[in-house]
Amino acid sequence: MAKAPVLTPQADDFPRWYQDLVNKAELADNGPVRGTMVIRPYGYGLWERMQAEMDARIKETGTQNAYFPLLIPQSYLAREADHVEGFAPELAVVTHGGGKKLEEPAVVRPTSEMIINDYFSKWVQSYRDLPLLINQWANVVRWELRPRLFLRTTEFLWQEGHTAHATHEDARDFAAHIHREVYEDFMVNVLAMDVVPGRKSAKERFAGAINTLTLEGMMGDGKALQMATSHELGQNFAKAFNTSYLSKDGTQELVWQTSWGSTTRMIGALVMMHGDDNGLRVPPRLAQIQVVVLAIKGDETVLAKVRDIGDRLKAAGLRVQVDDRTDTPFGRRAVDWELKGVPVRIEVGPRDLENGTAMLARRIPGGKEPVAVESLVRLLPAVLEEDQALLLAQSRERRESRTADVSTIEEAVEVTATGWARMPWAKLGPGGESALGEHGVTLRCLVSEDGSVPDSDEAPGTLAVLARAY
Amino acid sequence: MAKAPVLTPQADDFPRWYQDLVNKAELADNGPVRGTMVIRPYGYGLWERMQAEMDARIKETGTQNAYFPLLIPQSYLAREADHVEGFAPELAVVTHGGGKKLEEPAVVRPTSEMIINDYFSKWVQSYRDLPLLINQWANVVRWELRPRLFLRTTEFLWQEGHTAHATHEDARDFAAHIHREVYEDFMVNVLAMDVVPGRKSAKERFAGAINTLTLEGMMGDGKALQMATSHELGQNFAKAFNTSYLSKDGTQELVWQTSWGSTTRMIGALVMMHGDDNGLRVPPRLAQIQVVVLAIKGDETVLAKVRDIGDRLKAAGLRVQVDDRTDTPFGRRAVDWELKGVPVRIEVGPRDLENGTAMLARRIPGGKEPVAVESLVRLLPAVLEEDQALLLAQSRERRESRTADVSTIEEAVEVTATGWARMPWAKLGPGGESALGEHGVTLRCLVSEDGSVPDSDEAPGTLAVLARAY
Repeated sequence: MAKAPVLTPQADDFPRWYQDLVNKAELADNGPVRGTMVIRPYGYGLWERMQAEMDARIKETGTQNAYFPLLIPQSYLAREADHVEGFAPELAVVTHGGGKKLEEPAVVRPTSEMIINDYFSKWVQSYRDLPLLINQWANVVRWELRPRLFLRTTEFLWQEGHTAHATHEDARDFAAHIHREVYEDFMVNVLAMDVVPGRKSAKERFAGAINTLTLEGMMGDGKALQMATSHELGQNFAKAFNTSYLSKDGTQELVWQTSWGSTTRMIGALVMMHGDDNGLRVPPRLAQIQVVVLAIKGDETVLAKVRDIGDRLKAAGLRVQVDDRTDTPFGRRAVDWELKGVPVRIEVGPRDLENGTAMLARRIPGGKEPVAVESLVRLLPAVLEEDQALLLAQSRERRESRTADVSTIEEAVEVTATGWARMPWAKLGPGGESALGEHGVTLRCLVSEDGSVPDSDEAPGTLAVLARAY
Repeated sequence: MAKAPVLTPQADDFPRWYQDLVNKAELADNGPVRGTMVIRPYGYGLWERMQAEMDARIKETGTQNAYFPLLIPQSYLAREADHVEGFAPELAVVTHGGGKKLEEPAVVRPTSEMIINDYFSKWVQSYRDLPLLINQWANVVRWELRPRLFLRTTEFLWQEGHTAHATHEDARDFAAHIHREVYEDFMVNVLAMDVVPGRKSAKERFAGAINTLTLEGMMGDGKALQMATSHELGQNFAKAFNTSYLSKDGTQELVWQTSWGSTTRMIGALVMMHGDDNGLRVPPRLAQIQVVVLAIKGDETVLAKVRDIGDRLKAAGLRVQVDDRTDTPFGRRAVDWELKGVPVRIEVGPRDLENGTAMLARRIPGGKEPVAVESLVRLLPAVLEEDQALLLAQSRERRESRTADVSTIEEAVEVTATGWARMPWAKLGPGGESALGEHGVTLRCLVSEDGSVPDSDEAPGTLAVLARAY
């Protein structure tokens, strides 16, 4: 039953396939206000697992969570010139509160640099207060004219980190640490995603940053998606908010800052990176349900057995759901778990019980085979790790096979119809970047030939990674 | 140094003491938009621990988390008459988005009954879809004219549960289960708070509910604070949104619903329930830092020792912070940890090391004594459990000693100047309730003489608990 045509095939219409999957796997629905979304329990469960994994990595850097207000006085936005220019067109504005017109309208935060810096300037007094490392899990609103569930939504959920440091070097190192040791580590080792770390060109930088580091992933259709960014803000916000500290030497110095964010967009990336014509495939280390144990029919021995297997797998530390909803046909439930991408299904019917076996169905490589019930606890952890590695290998193989080195803009346009192009930055330059823009191709990031992140745009041997993007 | 007068004494000015504590223990700051707040890392750490403990209990009921949009079309609010009347005066209204005036203004959610019911009506089709049990962790906005950090803020954080059931009985039982097994269990066993479970009178019910269950706590000044509520919504919202299901018998039936919430207000309650003139006292089972290990001076042997003790206590499963910031005077750090209410401090100086001892300072009962370093791992779990029990006993003792049975409105007014009054509901009645309101005294909840929650306002022997309230 895994072959029922429940989704538009990817090859026919990739955007339609995406929309079908998000809908039928019950990940999200459109909200009533244009561009907003309802994240349904199965989709939100993916986000909760992402949060748990990311939050642990963020805390390991010494960063603490806090919460800043949703509503920001409109005048705050104007304090940093590039920043206001970047965000003004996307703002939601509250003009009335408590039944009255407000004296000063408030904007719903599109990001929290402004309000957080206002407090940083109060909290930072001495070198002893540095580094100040703060993260926030929150919702933000950026008015979206062409919304798409998870990928571009008027409201989205994210974490935003904001830090202040005594020196330029310390801020630079911290932004880089978040980029590679938090974001890339999480994406590669939990999301099983091949991602390319690099720096943004001046044109693509965050509004107000002196350097933006990014991770770019190749989706199933060969387009790029920006997965997370980490910014060096230099002293731009420190100057705007006069955030300074008394140094050990007794001088007053401006701080150096970073900010960094990752969003519910990663759920969309997960779908487009690992999904196939049968639905989602969730990497086992992320999955909120790694194993589902299904009763094929509702007889008492079968129900007792699936519950027993479920208990034993849970006791072995696996994340397990028992599906004993036998008033719904088995075939429909199996298709549903395929759609939702649960890595392993254990299917138990009366005949299996006689033999002491169950069917082991693997979503990631595909296929089904009978296995001894007694061997499950021993077998499954290895199966799940194998599936995790397979997803990562498939995503790497796709990116490598669909990336080509080019030397002209014409070639770049051609190659990016189905994949990514790489071209020497010295040859392309900002002029070539603009020219590509007219063809809908963007510079995703600058990388070094050895795969490391260049220290500057002018570093010799720097390559531009070019793609159409979400 | 614990006796330095860092806070206004409670007895001098309780509200001022509260404000001092919230500020000096670095729990929260006022936000720039009136009534909003910045929850600082130490305050947010308390909330994260509350979330973890509550979320586990909520999930154990079979409830799943999801996320619904912040912005709700203004017209939605009007669908349930009592509900719109209750919330209209508190709304924040977004009139502009993406640089344009919106065709229909959107309100920032004051609660999510309306938007969630819109989706429930789509998702619920058959009896197989019930019960539908959803929870959301989110921010909400209710314009606040007399704000007070944590207690009444224009924006606050909360969880809101929303459920749909096939029968009245199932909904009623679920609301009661959340009330006692989730909320009360968490408050008594984690927050170490004596709370009184009861039902609200018709006057105090949630807008749109047929029954509101509450937990009321007595604060340090004898006033009451509503800690959390669980509502039976009957079929009011089901009718407004036509949320119905096909029963097993093939008939179309309206669902029965509940909603229930608890908020960052619990942090304010924690302060006012357990705080004293030296600061906060955090119950060990809640504390994000149960034990702080302080280096008195910065010599290398001491620093090595505090880190070693910290590692051993962490390995024993305790939540530990090492304070080796010896460029800040020890006295100032000790006062700060007192203010923050960390249950146990282990203070290590050069002289202690020679004897193989450290000072054990206990925040909850107070006092300090030298203990053998080797005994800490064995000793501390018992110390922490003892302190947990002590806080609960103190809060129970306060409520019992400051509650008096009365038989007239005059007595009730007198008693509630410093504590709570109890009066037979049959004697007080809605008329008496209104009369008390003119004296600033409210009916906190209706309870039975044996401490159980009455099934109806008319149950014989029902008592009204009366108090001034936050």
